[in-house]
Amino acid sequence: MKKSLFISLFVGLSLSVFAADIKSPNGNLLLNVDVNAQGQPYYNLNYKGKPVIVDSKLGLAAKEAKFTDNFKILSTDTASFNETWHPVWGEYQDIVNHYNQLSVNMENTDGLLMTVCFRVFDDGMGFRYEFPIQDKANYLAVLDEVTEFNFPADNTLWAIPGDYDTDEFLFTEARLSEMPNALNSKKGRHSESQWAPELANAVQTPLLAKSDDGLYINVHEAALIGYPAMQLDLDTANYGMKAHLTPDKLGVRGYLQLPFNTPWRTIIVSDDAREILASQLILNLNEPSKIEDTSWIKPMKFIGVWWEMFTGKEKTWAYSDDFRAKPGITDYTKLKPNGRHPANTENVKKYIDFAAAHGIDGVLVEGWNEGWEDWGSYRKNRQFLFDKPYPDFDLPYLRDYAKEKGVKLIMHHETAANAMDYERQLDKAFQFMKDNNYDAVKTGYVGAIIPRSEHHTSQYMVDHAQYVIEKAADYEIMIDSHEAPRPTGLIRTYPNWLAQESARGGEFESMGGNPPSHTAILPFTRLKGGPMDYTPGLFQTDLSYYGEGKTGKAMTTLARQLALYLTMPSPMQMAADLPENYERFPDAFQFIKDVPVEWKDSKYLEAEPARYITVARLDKNSDDWYVAGITDDNARDAVIDFSFLPAGSKYVATIYADAPDAHWETNPQAYTITTKDVTSKTKLKQHIAPGGGFAIRLQPK
Amino acid sequence: MKKSLFISLFVGLSLSVFAADIKSPNGNLLLNVDVNAQGQPYYNLNYKGKPVIVDSKLGLAAKEAKFTDNFKILSTDTASFNETWHPVWGEYQDIVNHYNQLSVNMENTDGLLMTVCFRVFDDGMGFRYEFPIQDKANYLAVLDEVTEFNFPADNTLWAIPGDYDTDEFLFTEARLSEMPNALNSKKGRHSESQWAPELANAVQTPLLAKSDDGLYINVHEAALIGYPAMQLDLDTANYGMKAHLTPDKLGVRGYLQLPFNTPWRTIIVSDDAREILASQLILNLNEPSKIEDTSWIKPMKFIGVWWEMFTGKEKTWAYSDDFRAKPGITDYTKLKPNGRHPANTENVKKYIDFAAAHGIDGVLVEGWNEGWEDWGSYRKNRQFLFDKPYPDFDLPYLRDYAKEKGVKLIMHHETAANAMDYERQLDKAFQFMKDNNYDAVKTGYVGAIIPRSEHHTSQYMVDHAQYVIEKAADYEIMIDSHEAPRPTGLIRTYPNWLAQESARGGEFESMGGNPPSHTAILPFTRLKGGPMDYTPGLFQTDLSYYGEGKTGKAMTTLARQLALYLTMPSPMQMAADLPENYERFPDAFQFIKDVPVEWKDSKYLEAEPARYITVARLDKNSDDWYVAGITDDNARDAVIDFSFLPAGSKYVATIYADAPDAHWETNPQAYTITTKDVTSKTKLKQHIAPGGGFAIRLQPK
Repeated sequence: MKKSLFISLFVGLSLSVFAADIKSPNGNLLLNVDVNAQGQPYYNLNYKGKPVIVDSKLGLAAKEAKFTDNFKILSTDTASFNETWHPVWGEYQDIVNHYNQLSVNMENTDGLLMTVCFRVFDDGMGFRYEFPIQDKANYLAVLDEVTEFNFPADNTLWAIPGDYDTDEFLFTEARLSEMPNALNSKKGRHSESQWAPELANAVQTPLLAKSDDGLYINVHEAALIGYPAMQLDLDTANYGMKAHLTPDKLGVRGYLQLPFNTPWRTIIVSDDAREILASQLILNLNEPSKIEDTSWIKPMKFIGVWWEMFTGKEKTWAYSDDFRAKPGITDYTKLKPNGRHPANTENVKKYIDFAAAHGIDGVLVEGWNEGWEDWGSYRKNRQFLFDKPYPDFDLPYLRDYAKEKGVKLIMHHETAANAMDYERQLDKAFQFMKDNNYDAVKTGYVGAIIPRSEHHTSQYMVDHAQYVIEKAADYEIMIDSHEAPRPTGLIRTYPNWLAQESARGGEFESMGGNPPSHTAILPFTRLKGGPMDYTPGLFQTDLSYYGEGKTGKAMTTLARQLALYLTMPSPMQMAADLPENYERFPDAFQFIKDVPVEWKDSKYLEAEPARYITVARLDKNSDDWYVAGITDDNARDAVIDFSFLPAGSKYVATIYADAPDAHWETNPQAYTITTKDVTSKTKLKQHIAPGGGFAIRLQPK
Repeated sequence: MKKSLFISLFVGLSLSVFAADIKSPNGNLLLNVDVNAQGQPYYNLNYKGKPVIVDSKLGLAAKEAKFTDNFKILSTDTASFNETWHPVWGEYQDIVNHYNQLSVNMENTDGLLMTVCFRVFDDGMGFRYEFPIQDKANYLAVLDEVTEFNFPADNTLWAIPGDYDTDEFLFTEARLSEMPNALNSKKGRHSESQWAPELANAVQTPLLAKSDDGLYINVHEAALIGYPAMQLDLDTANYGMKAHLTPDKLGVRGYLQLPFNTPWRTIIVSDDAREILASQLILNLNEPSKIEDTSWIKPMKFIGVWWEMFTGKEKTWAYSDDFRAKPGITDYTKLKPNGRHPANTENVKKYIDFAAAHGIDGVLVEGWNEGWEDWGSYRKNRQFLFDKPYPDFDLPYLRDYAKEKGVKLIMHHETAANAMDYERQLDKAFQFMKDNNYDAVKTGYVGAIIPRSEHHTSQYMVDHAQYVIEKAADYEIMIDSHEAPRPTGLIRTYPNWLAQESARGGEFESMGGNPPSHTAILPFTRLKGGPMDYTPGLFQTDLSYYGEGKTGKAMTTLARQLALYLTMPSPMQMAADLPENYERFPDAFQFIKDVPVEWKDSKYLEAEPARYITVARLDKNSDDWYVAGITDDNARDAVIDFSFLPAGSKYVATIYADAPDAHWETNPQAYTITTKDVTSKTKLKQHIAPGGGFAIRLQPK
């Protein structure tokens, strides 16, 4: 990865023991830091003179030492940094990393040393705790992180419930004061830890807040390494939020060895919702790529043997229903096939043919390997083998066939949450991939974690994810992780981490549906940590089409599904529907074939959280622009100002839009494809149906 | 491994629902099995008409199903088995495995199926629970194992305290009714779980009992695979003992997937104490070797850079005292060496020279690798690296030097109990060994286990030990494990598992001492599971010799240390003392040089638990016999009847004995070396000093 650096770095040292403050490069943000009468450190943040965060405490309590009070500020260091760096892939070819830094060095009356390092950008700020080597503590068993994010008023929040093991929830929109009640009244929380009393007032990050005076505020964390994930406990009386770290089941939230820097706690803020979407703050707070040669990292589109299992006819990941498979008999050649197992040679061959015919890069196959019959993972040492194909999956044949067709097979490693056993098999599993021409793997952690003292977001699983991604890099393997700790911008450091699930994805369209507002809030929240494998591209949205008692409707029009390729950008983008459904709508499918997965530049044109998004993106590998928009379940007219186009150039726009009578519920497959000449002076009003969207390709004339 | 099989196998099937019984091949043991009025299965065992175990319940309770009561016997199967097999190494070249088997097939009113399989040998019995595939339960999260071992009277026991994490205790001799009080009054219990209230009445196995009517009874388990280790809760009122499985820290004692067979619960019984020592019952209940080509498994004697760290002058495993090393700075070249680090090139070279000069096979080096400065393992992800020598340990040089001298370096892997990280490093660590000509490794697990929900003897660590031994076999590596779950005869299945510590070993002579009775009870208890790396061979027993304020005396004469090579047989036998101490006593050291570590045959001549042992062994690779005897802290005259020698043959005996005025405390280094002609008709009275012993080599004339 080449990097252009324009660094102006200066370091200042002040020995003042008074409050410290620092501004963003453009002066819009003002951060104050001080200690109160009890010696408790706190900070507050203003944006254009408006309070974003009012006095909010800082600190960390461990078994061995309390870094919480009786502090005084010893000194402060300031610095400025400005660089432009170039990600391997993403929404932008150039990312400006420009901030002023304030390090507040403190000591308390126990002689404990702590530095809080703040970086203030034009679009927000991050801060972290830095614990230097010190005499009084070498190790910290973390019991509590004090960090607060206190709002000045009862902001509106979009958030999902606090949970140590899953984030696959719909977002709830409510005033902070009403959020706990709103969350607890919802159905559908399904993790083992969901109703832990200690999580009653908790929400997860990234969350979005909006103040009545028009500020948009995203709160999350960056560079989650060697530390548990952060939830936030809501203080409904005082409009506050306080860090709540995921503990292990023995009650410890993390084991730290000094020196240690925590992840960054991040606040993205703007009075323009579009700037929240455009912000690269979380990536900027992560370390540059640890992978030197990134030439093997290749963004991709893919189809998969996957949606078949959701759409009906009782198709299964499992090869057999033979009860003898349940207790772990692994001689699969002796089992009776159930005949409903799509990961078979003949069917996969059809997917390869389809991908080859339409220029789709890869084919994911789920259910290819032994172990799916018996979902007893938590109660045994091993459920899945990652080098044992089912008898009806002729891997050598398919490997060679795919290669001949120029298509990549994509590996699937469902671990059933037995991370410990996955580590035992990892080298063998990755070597098996390389031996068989697989370059990318979708990983999964469905179930309760082994080691059994851990949660999906406790320190162990954060470490495990790092272990897997680093080992994958050693093997030149790309990862798309599901049920992993939610992303915090580590894709900058590990650009082989193409995507994660870590939210309620498209699969839920077959399980109750995702209201249109869901994909209009995810870009403001979940996506700030990194791309999501949302699995867009659903053309057959009425599931009764599949018969066999299948009911339910995906809450989307067909045209909106095209828009998601731009509003939910990812370098690993699925075309989720069945090949035969794409064959029924070849003109609409053309957009999925055309749309890139990495970008030279992006312009957010319109945005309001959970309501609508309109975005334009420039293909990384051509001069084509793409524009897309979505709305919630209200119809809307997007207004597209094409002034982002180079003045004087002419483009022909191919517009995939909802038909005038389209509606997600009653008429989802009504779309129009039209063309239109466009220049930088064009302004286009584009109708969007309830639950709808549009997608435009702009080609230079 | 070649095997001679003389099998006479017949299978009988009975549909009786009545009590079942079966006898040992010689008829001395009689086992009865039945269910009581509550449908609880139970058994009892008699030896020559005397009750050994009175009615004792059987069963297992899991979260999902209770296999404890409302049972009826459906049927019984009987079989007989007789083979002679040949271990790769050990006390005997031929081991007879001869038993009658009774399988009691039961079903309870919940429809749960359980078979209890009993094998009755001439020297005891074993039984295990066999849970077949069944409709009502696929998985068991074990909460309790009901198994009882109830004595008819208040037998004398020799036992160590129940503990989930350590077995490095002295044995306590007490009546069963008095044992809990006797144990709890002892000092020196040091594990984190030692005072868990639930362990207040618990002891560990193997334990030995002696009845007032002269029966010796060893209780233990065999083939501990995929299951937690067993402790025993004492019922002081009823002279009973009940299984107490080591739980994980979440309270579950094991996760089983059916079909599953538990380890064997074993009872070795005889009215002759020598037969307890000679019993191979626990090995017989283990599976044959899983390793086909065992030619690379080579028993050995070794010396080690090790005792130096115990004897004084503050020598350390660590390379540096630099405080900067503590917080994990790993650029050791920048640290100041402490100058008290014996694992350095020059010193190790001396050990290699000594080994080469005296025909000692290997040199163990502890403290060779990075990580010893900072004993914070439980609080961090990684303490030790297994491929990073300290700067003062020139591994390539020493590797080549040792090879040139015909000496093997022995690897040391102290994991600081982070089993999880050891698994991550294992392939790399073993490959590093092979790349550097190491064939054997001493492993260690000092500290609290990671994963943090586990104990040293919970199911996870049992599985971990199996994982390590199997991977070691893949690399053709031999293991000497310390702080691992105590052995249960798995050396038969994995003959590369040369030895374990798993008891209070010779190192404690520098930490309070081991009373002479300790090595007179270990062969009746701990050693029934497999060989111990006890580290005999201490010549300089008065530690004040080392000056620098070092005090304390090993509770042994020098001659006794020679005897331990026979009374504590192991295929991996250390000469524990410093080379310079051996050079002071070259005539006595000659015995250590001569004594073999594997045997064609063994004859126990005299034995009384914790009092005395006299044993004769025939070298596997020559016609030399060796005889040794030890006593407790009372002087004793052993009477050696040489009738085990072939009639008519003449031998010259070289006798290493305590001098008449020897005493462990006042005159430990007073020994005599004499020679004497011996035939099968010779009877020799041999004096043994308090804490003393003797060792004889018999060479054919």
